[in-house]
Amino acid sequence: MGLKVAFQGERGAYSEGALMQYFAPTGEEVEPVPCSSFEAAFEALASGAVDRAVLPIENSLAGSIHRNYDLLLRHTDVHIVGEINYRVRHNLLALPGVRLEDVRRVLSHPQALAQCEGFLTRMHLAREATYDTAGSAKRLREENLRDAAAIASLRAAEVYDLVVLASDIEDDPENYTRFLVLAREPAPPPQGVPAKTSIVFSLKNAPGILFKALSVFALRDIDLTKIESRPLRGQRWQYIFYLDFAASLADESAQNALRHLSEIAPFLRVLGSYPQDTTN
Amino acid sequence: MGLKVAFQGERGAYSEGALMQYFAPTGEEVEPVPCSSFEAAFEALASGAVDRAVLPIENSLAGSIHRNYDLLLRHTDVHIVGEINYRVRHNLLALPGVRLEDVRRVLSHPQALAQCEGFLTRMHLAREATYDTAGSAKRLREENLRDAAAIASLRAAEVYDLVVLASDIEDDPENYTRFLVLAREPAPPPQGVPAKTSIVFSLKNAPGILFKALSVFALRDIDLTKIESRPLRGQRWQYIFYLDFAASLADESAQNALRHLSEIAPFLRVLGSYPQDTTN
Repeated sequence: MGLKVAFQGERGAYSEGALMQYFAPTGEEVEPVPCSSFEAAFEALASGAVDRAVLPIENSLAGSIHRNYDLLLRHTDVHIVGEINYRVRHNLLALPGVRLEDVRRVLSHPQALAQCEGFLTRMHLAREATYDTAGSAKRLREENLRDAAAIASLRAAEVYDLVVLASDIEDDPENYTRFLVLAREPAPPPQGVPAKTSIVFSLKNAPGILFKALSVFALRDIDLTKIESRPLRGQRWQYIFYLDFAASLADESAQNALRHLSEIAPFLRVLGSYPQDTTN
Repeated sequence: MGLKVAFQGERGAYSEGALMQYFAPTGEEVEPVPCSSFEAAFEALASGAVDRAVLPIENSLAGSIHRNYDLLLRHTDVHIVGEINYRVRHNLLALPGVRLEDVRRVLSHPQALAQCEGFLTRMHLAREATYDTAGSAKRLREENLRDAAAIASLRAAEVYDLVVLASDIEDDPENYTRFLVLAREPAPPPQGVPAKTSIVFSLKNAPGILFKALSVFALRDIDLTKIESRPLRGQRWQYIFYLDFAASLADESAQNALRHLSEIAPFLRVLGSYPQDTTN
């Protein structure tokens, strides 16, 4: 009976690679549970069908995934308990026995194909766009394609029993996705552990209002690690802010800063307090 | 001889719809120029092959498009001269003569299919994922598909001579994409015109440093309309910030704020100063 962990995508998706990386050092037995959508992963967690969910929240090239912030806001029964900075490494996978010179076409999601543009051009390989990286790996296996390869995660090679013809074939090595680990119970780290707290708040528009809001952290020497504004549609000049700061809710200074912020912000919610991923 | 305007995508892409909407009130004759990538659109502008480029920079559901910020930073020869808040309206398109009851399957990009989930389920329509919305519309025409429909822009209906079986079929009407209009020469609006200025700057990590940086705007009563931090990979605890404020570079207070900011920020660049889109 392992820990059931929901992720979005097919078996072998990058999200599954990320969750395996996160739980590996804990020694816990993990059972990844694929979900067809982010919503389904949240539902699985909220309903108790799984113990954790691991979902992408921002990518170094593509930016923040607002959809998952929306779901975090909607699900007051779900809390962030961890984060992973996952390096997205693209691999060229094929059926065992297939050699690089046999490959005529490469299947993958358009974004993955685009991120490996240089490699594909150097190798004179034709691209075939599909709508999923792991799904492309699965197709090689299911349709026994021996003239094709897929760009997907190492995890997909394990899941579909494929060989790696080339690894780290992405043009830009600075491709990281930050994933959040979600649970039904909050778990703020004890003092002394490098921690982060993620909050969402809104502000009424007034000159200098954001400056005032940030003063609650500056006055207490609390570092910010992320800030992002998002306009509230239909409410002109109204914004919500996503903010991460480097402290645990277990710290008194963090509690004081949030009490202070609630005097300024009409809406404030703590999404979770969790150990910082200090590996990347 | 119209104004040549580059956009990314196939003819009929949502980007083409956005640029037509932007230039319509100017009465200028416009020749949209499709480009295969964002890079290609920047190159076309920088080389003089086109007069303007129109590129998406953020979406209300999907977030900021960091890739285009990267390209703006790299292309010091390109300036923002305008913005458009474009409402993404999905339409069900088919060949003339095809009726809704003839349609067995709906082709589109997975994201567009997902955004019309409610409609497709109510109508019992099978989904077929492709890698482009406009490309799906084009396929109906090229392959003479009479049992299929595509989810794409109204512009795609014009370009490929299709009929609209249903319009505004998206589940969430709050789907907006903000596009930037780029040119080779900066064009800061005169005083009195509601304006925005977009800047990028970096800060050395120190407690309260962002607070200090924002003070240059708060002290001069300049409103911020966007702020977003982005970690610089490989440089731990180093960030760059994307910031938009509501003033023109023609305003003395904006010039003073930027001079003040340059005392604090090791790196600072103005991406452009342009009239605000006040329609949405």
